[in-house]
Amino acid sequence: METGITPALIALDWGTSSLRAYLMDNNGRVLDRRGNRHGIQNLPVPGIAGFEQVFAEISADWLAKYPGLPAVAGGMVGSAQGWAEAPYVPCPADTATLAGRAVAVESASGIRLLIAPGVIFDLPDANPDVMRGEEIQIAGALADHPEFGPRACIALPGTHSKWVQVSDGRIARFATYMTGELFAVLSRHSILGRLMPEEEGTDAEARSAAFTDGVNAARKGSAGDLAHQIFATRTLGLTRRLPAEALKDYLSGLLIGSELVSGLALMRDTLASDTPLVLIGEDALCERYVRALDILGVRVSAKLENTAPRGLFQLAFAAGLVPSLPSTQATAP
Amino acid sequence: METGITPALIALDWGTSSLRAYLMDNNGRVLDRRGNRHGIQNLPVPGIAGFEQVFAEISADWLAKYPGLPAVAGGMVGSAQGWAEAPYVPCPADTATLAGRAVAVESASGIRLLIAPGVIFDLPDANPDVMRGEEIQIAGALADHPEFGPRACIALPGTHSKWVQVSDGRIARFATYMTGELFAVLSRHSILGRLMPEEEGTDAEARSAAFTDGVNAARKGSAGDLAHQIFATRTLGLTRRLPAEALKDYLSGLLIGSELVSGLALMRDTLASDTPLVLIGEDALCERYVRALDILGVRVSAKLENTAPRGLFQLAFAAGLVPSLPSTQATAP
Repeated sequence: METGITPALIALDWGTSSLRAYLMDNNGRVLDRRGNRHGIQNLPVPGIAGFEQVFAEISADWLAKYPGLPAVAGGMVGSAQGWAEAPYVPCPADTATLAGRAVAVESASGIRLLIAPGVIFDLPDANPDVMRGEEIQIAGALADHPEFGPRACIALPGTHSKWVQVSDGRIARFATYMTGELFAVLSRHSILGRLMPEEEGTDAEARSAAFTDGVNAARKGSAGDLAHQIFATRTLGLTRRLPAEALKDYLSGLLIGSELVSGLALMRDTLASDTPLVLIGEDALCERYVRALDILGVRVSAKLENTAPRGLFQLAFAAGLVPSLPSTQATAP
Repeated sequence: METGITPALIALDWGTSSLRAYLMDNNGRVLDRRGNRHGIQNLPVPGIAGFEQVFAEISADWLAKYPGLPAVAGGMVGSAQGWAEAPYVPCPADTATLAGRAVAVESASGIRLLIAPGVIFDLPDANPDVMRGEEIQIAGALADHPEFGPRACIALPGTHSKWVQVSDGRIARFATYMTGELFAVLSRHSILGRLMPEEEGTDAEARSAAFTDGVNAARKGSAGDLAHQIFATRTLGLTRRLPAEALKDYLSGLLIGSELVSGLALMRDTLASDTPLVLIGEDALCERYVRALDILGVRVSAKLENTAPRGLFQLAFAAGLVPSLPSTQATAP
């Protein structure tokens, strides 16, 4: 931690499988960070006591040194299975909307923790869609990059990828794609995994070519084809058209490509007229999306990582927990 | 077993998870039948010894009473993980093609077992597709229903559904859909299963309506939409638009509907001008497909079940193991 800086906020990005905690100053800078595997589905003891214990442990020395710091949290910690349920707010939603509907809990040690709600997109005659955590990442991205506020398409690759239309600084609409989870369950639990070796492959060229093949197969797909197309992951292995070590890359390319074909079509109107396409997520995964988008002839405007701390700071500011908003320049890493 | 009838063939439908054995007479009639869970992935001991043991046990009393009966087998028993590999034969393929490329093994007890090959559909510039077992079911269906021989579309719903174009009595082309396996892995291993109750639901009306909703969602889908559309199985449960017990039916309708949209498009040319659409498979599953097809405005010409014994008999005849082909009438149940 730098000296001479005063901590102003504890920010928690508390998801299903992990918890990340940040100590931030008045200017939205991260002074200290830590994380563990105590996501909401992996608490040391069940229920509220589990949340209390994990929060107390991860923030103990921060709070010992700076008693009474305000705290905010986003992600699945606000779900029905979380510390306290913060019901979804409808689109269009921005940081002020989130702050206005956040739910406060008081920890055993007397710290007030403000928990962000998720967002629901719910039109008549369509199925509802939901997010929890991504709205915080988007808030952070828009704070760091105000140029995307007026109009942008933001894709957040992951277990449940989100495609988000931003208009006037607000989340206007979005769609979830279970791409990452499909890849995981098909690789681990379906016949497609049988031909895949345990070890990571070393033939980078073959793996890259297989990924490209998968993306191109997705590009040629029509409605409903996916359940057929994924079977090629097996037949290309059986017939030795692809080496076993490249089969995962083929499936990855096919699933990511399918998401892109659908997501780009969904955002067609948004993406017209030079609207930026922004990726937020883990860098290696975003790089796969950049490559797949390149194969489809689509350029990415920006690739951002870990915008959650900044989003949580924005939430804290909108809720009046920190006195000032940082300038964009001051917080650039 | 009827008296006064002479057994002429042992026919084995030997798949991944189960084995079914039939004692058949010269006329292709099933005289006795039995089955067990000793599919090729569940042998009592690994390797050839396992196949030997399972075959010896299931046919012991038949062979004791009628020594030296010829035997045929189809399904995964002919795969690289089977008793002996019978490599795939290319399309177009009929029973004579299968018999000509079948592989014989001699059992420890001296019985010659003829193992059918699978079929591969492999065009330049497309991914290959394979089947093992379905070609036998198709042979049986065409033997019982010669009216489908000249031209038909045959769909075989299942773990890996097949959509097959039959022309001039031969399998001309086909495509696999991993619909059943997708349903299984998503229900058991993905987040979509979390809201699904263990028990079978009892509200038939709600379940039927959810299935219809799923089919209609599939009908409205575009390329690549599936990974997004399946997420509605969760959001419809979260928002209580569907009761928990109906979520499986929604997912089933969506996945079956997607297969139908794609399969019907693939077979569009075949299905023009009154070509029959035939379903072969387990009756309750075929009934779901009939309902989904009805929602899409498509009529099924026939729904057949367990045509494998008749197909294996056709294979035996084509290989010269039984002297005569039965007339269709004589073998009607």
